[in-house]
Amino acid sequence: VDVISSSSNPTVRSARRLVSARGRRGAGGRFLLEGPEGIRAALTAGHPPTVLLATEAAAARHAGLVNQARRGGAQVALVAERLLAGLADTTTPQGLVAVVGSVAAGLDNLPARPRLVCVLVEARDPGNAGTVIRAADAFGADAVVLTMGSVDAEHPRAVRAAAGSLFHLPVLTGVAWPALRDALRDRGLCLVGADPHAADTVAAAPLHQPTALILGNEAHGLAAAARDDLDFVVRLPMHGRAESLNLAAAAAVLLYETANRQWTVRRKEAAVGR
Amino acid sequence: VDVISSSSNPTVRSARRLVSARGRRGAGGRFLLEGPEGIRAALTAGHPPTVLLATEAAAARHAGLVNQARRGGAQVALVAERLLAGLADTTTPQGLVAVVGSVAAGLDNLPARPRLVCVLVEARDPGNAGTVIRAADAFGADAVVLTMGSVDAEHPRAVRAAAGSLFHLPVLTGVAWPALRDALRDRGLCLVGADPHAADTVAAAPLHQPTALILGNEAHGLAAAARDDLDFVVRLPMHGRAESLNLAAAAAVLLYETANRQWTVRRKEAAVGR
Repeated sequence: VDVISSSSNPTVRSARRLVSARGRRGAGGRFLLEGPEGIRAALTAGHPPTVLLATEAAAARHAGLVNQARRGGAQVALVAERLLAGLADTTTPQGLVAVVGSVAAGLDNLPARPRLVCVLVEARDPGNAGTVIRAADAFGADAVVLTMGSVDAEHPRAVRAAAGSLFHLPVLTGVAWPALRDALRDRGLCLVGADPHAADTVAAAPLHQPTALILGNEAHGLAAAARDDLDFVVRLPMHGRAESLNLAAAAAVLLYETANRQWTVRRKEAAVGR
Repeated sequence: VDVISSSSNPTVRSARRLVSARGRRGAGGRFLLEGPEGIRAALTAGHPPTVLLATEAAAARHAGLVNQARRGGAQVALVAERLLAGLADTTTPQGLVAVVGSVAAGLDNLPARPRLVCVLVEARDPGNAGTVIRAADAFGADAVVLTMGSVDAEHPRAVRAAAGSLFHLPVLTGVAWPALRDALRDRGLCLVGADPHAADTVAAAPLHQPTALILGNEAHGLAAAARDDLDFVVRLPMHGRAESLNLAAAAAVLLYETANRQWTVRRKEAAVGR
């Protein structure tokens, strides 16, 4: 079996290009998945990689996964350990890196009757974006939206933090706020913004109804243009000295609280036979 | 005014040593704070830096903060931009890096009558540790404990993610599980572990009582030695396809839920005049 050891190999080179945002844009949004879990999630979600690069050791260790990728249409190539490491943002990609087509969707992919949507307005940290996508998936959100000016959801650190969830729910990117606002309202969602300095806590918002949770930038919070359009702006109740939470932690708590209230209502409705 | 421009300057060299875990241990746990917010939090908490390194531009921009540090006993030195960047883990330290003494405490610093303690058992990611410390502070926890084998809470990325909260509540580190378990029990805390595969959800745990929340490693979950000692092991209710949350996101949600239930009880008790 041939093992690619040259960094000028065309397959390796075109994969390496996807490490940068510019390279991903130039390649129609194709991006890199590191490690077996992410690749398995992509395959399970019917989103097979086009290319799978593996070290010899990893190909042996994950033979089933490699075969599944090949059957899904992936070109499988063995590469030297050092080349694979150069493709990975993680220090431990576990010997597998795959190239997959973009999953980023536009506003027309917003579901018709969503109950819970999470919107990040101008979020900048890729780890936060990925962690929010994972939490939104965990709590059953119908979509995540990253507005224009937000970080790339397919940045290697976002992909890693999302841990497969990028393939589980629609992730809408590059959406302008006014169009998004109209689309969320058209679908009957209540627009609830989060701000640690808000006067009201989450108790004041009707989160049991279909809700879009709107979170702002890590440093500057909610942009004024978005904030002025919201139905409610609320904060989480804090009892200590920290003034705020990390963006992804705040999103996770809000998603949990909203999902909890919505499911409480759904269970009650089910119990009375509606 | 002299601006240090040599990387062999002793003040710069001894600060640079604190970038690595080994260097921090060798320096009695002193660590680096990047940026004005962290330095302000340390000063406000009565934990002044011993050394403050600033670019000329930053010293002018943050003159009040620099003076406050100097009055608190810090040696203030102006350094060239490129030297300061070499000390910082962030790409944008905003021209200020300070050296502060360790805040890490031992088991004897566990408060006598805690209501809420958050324990990380063998957590490995510094960003997660810092984010958990920030969330624990926000939701009014009495302490955070990192067991022996966990990441260093004073790692630059942990310090940055904690955003000043390291100075707000006791952070106990390097604690062995059996001693910790006994100390938590002695203080009357219910030991509640988190595991996404647990049979019961958080609804099954008496979180309104004094509680120690116990979270495990990012990849392997709760260590068996700890798990076997717990009163409850519960999961968050999930409604989507993600099997779990990021460690810090899970901790934030559990801290929120626990603080919520405890405060609901306290408010009721206050209302009936107890």
